[in-house]
Amino acid sequence: MQIAIVLYDRFTALDAVGPYETLGRLPDAETVFVAERTGPVRSDTGCLAITADRALAEVPSPDLVVVPGGPGQTPQMENPVLLDWLRAADATSTWTTSVCTGSLLLGAAGLLRGRRATSHWLALDLLREYGAEPTGERVVVDGKYVTAAGVSSGIDMGLTLLGVIAGDEHAQAVQLLTEYDPQPPYDAGSPQKAPAHLVAEFRDASRFSLT
Amino acid sequence: MQIAIVLYDRFTALDAVGPYETLGRLPDAETVFVAERTGPVRSDTGCLAITADRALAEVPSPDLVVVPGGPGQTPQMENPVLLDWLRAADATSTWTTSVCTGSLLLGAAGLLRGRRATSHWLALDLLREYGAEPTGERVVVDGKYVTAAGVSSGIDMGLTLLGVIAGDEHAQAVQLLTEYDPQPPYDAGSPQKAPAHLVAEFRDASRFSLT
Repeated sequence: MQIAIVLYDRFTALDAVGPYETLGRLPDAETVFVAERTGPVRSDTGCLAITADRALAEVPSPDLVVVPGGPGQTPQMENPVLLDWLRAADATSTWTTSVCTGSLLLGAAGLLRGRRATSHWLALDLLREYGAEPTGERVVVDGKYVTAAGVSSGIDMGLTLLGVIAGDEHAQAVQLLTEYDPQPPYDAGSPQKAPAHLVAEFRDASRFSLT
Repeated sequence: MQIAIVLYDRFTALDAVGPYETLGRLPDAETVFVAERTGPVRSDTGCLAITADRALAEVPSPDLVVVPGGPGQTPQMENPVLLDWLRAADATSTWTTSVCTGSLLLGAAGLLRGRRATSHWLALDLLREYGAEPTGERVVVDGKYVTAAGVSSGIDMGLTLLGVIAGDEHAQAVQLLTEYDPQPPYDAGSPQKAPAHLVAEFRDASRFSLT
């Protein structure tokens, strides 16, 4: 199974690395980081670069597509090279997936019409613009389309899909190997649980940055 | 605050990216990925490379050091360039941290003598060889030494240390931004919780690969 993880300028690193570290441990999987051009691609902080080993055009028909999110998603919404590639790859993929605002890119490519989907909590409502039905769930599986909520949720998405593809026992083995027994020191990981003023501050700030 | 995240051939990507995505969001932090030489450094699967933007020698005195683990840790245990750098960086650091088998590198550098520490569950007992006292906790803070358990635990370590350095509210804001509200589809993330035969299989295999 060939897994293509898409990179673009100012992606969020954990969006890509969560699925990589879980789905990438599928038996016989070949994971390829792809971007419009090969070479290092900088994440949203500017401090981290992951190498795109192959150009999009070199990987036309992956079995599994992973699209991360991040602030750089916004300009990509009008990048015909990426959107055309997503449509073509989706035409033959077994699974088309996203993390965080990556689902908006799937939406902009026209792939989520009539589908239940999720995204980063700050971007959830924007899914409607692309004909998708947003849900507040952390991982949403609708047919072959698997979308995850913000950033860290790609780990849960990866393990969920591992279980579907390779069986519960393989997914549990990967969970054990990556010691994914989360013990966050706070319980503030969703807008329902975080202090209300923090949620409000992010919502205010995002009116200017997410659309 | 300068944060140096150490890379070496065959590190585990999530070990490095978990702390990056959390600690890297400290106010006024500068995160630098460092390695013996600059350029792309391949992770354990061979499918992912993160760029080392600076050589170790160019970053002599970071405020915060993060050492990830991974299968490539074993040959590094005898790499005087890395061990000398760790000792020198630790002499002036405010915090010296590790994820997974990164703690064995801190141990080999002589930095954990008499300290409580943790590591990947498969490597925990090896800490004794370096004078450390292994604990089964997910994140261990002993003075300025902060060690985390396997792979994904670097996220919990990052949030814990964020809270100590920048306050609970800042750490909660980062947890909310990264939507870290974990919902693993299985409860198999530690040797106490996973099916016993999976634990046994990993222990058998690790006798040949971890020492």
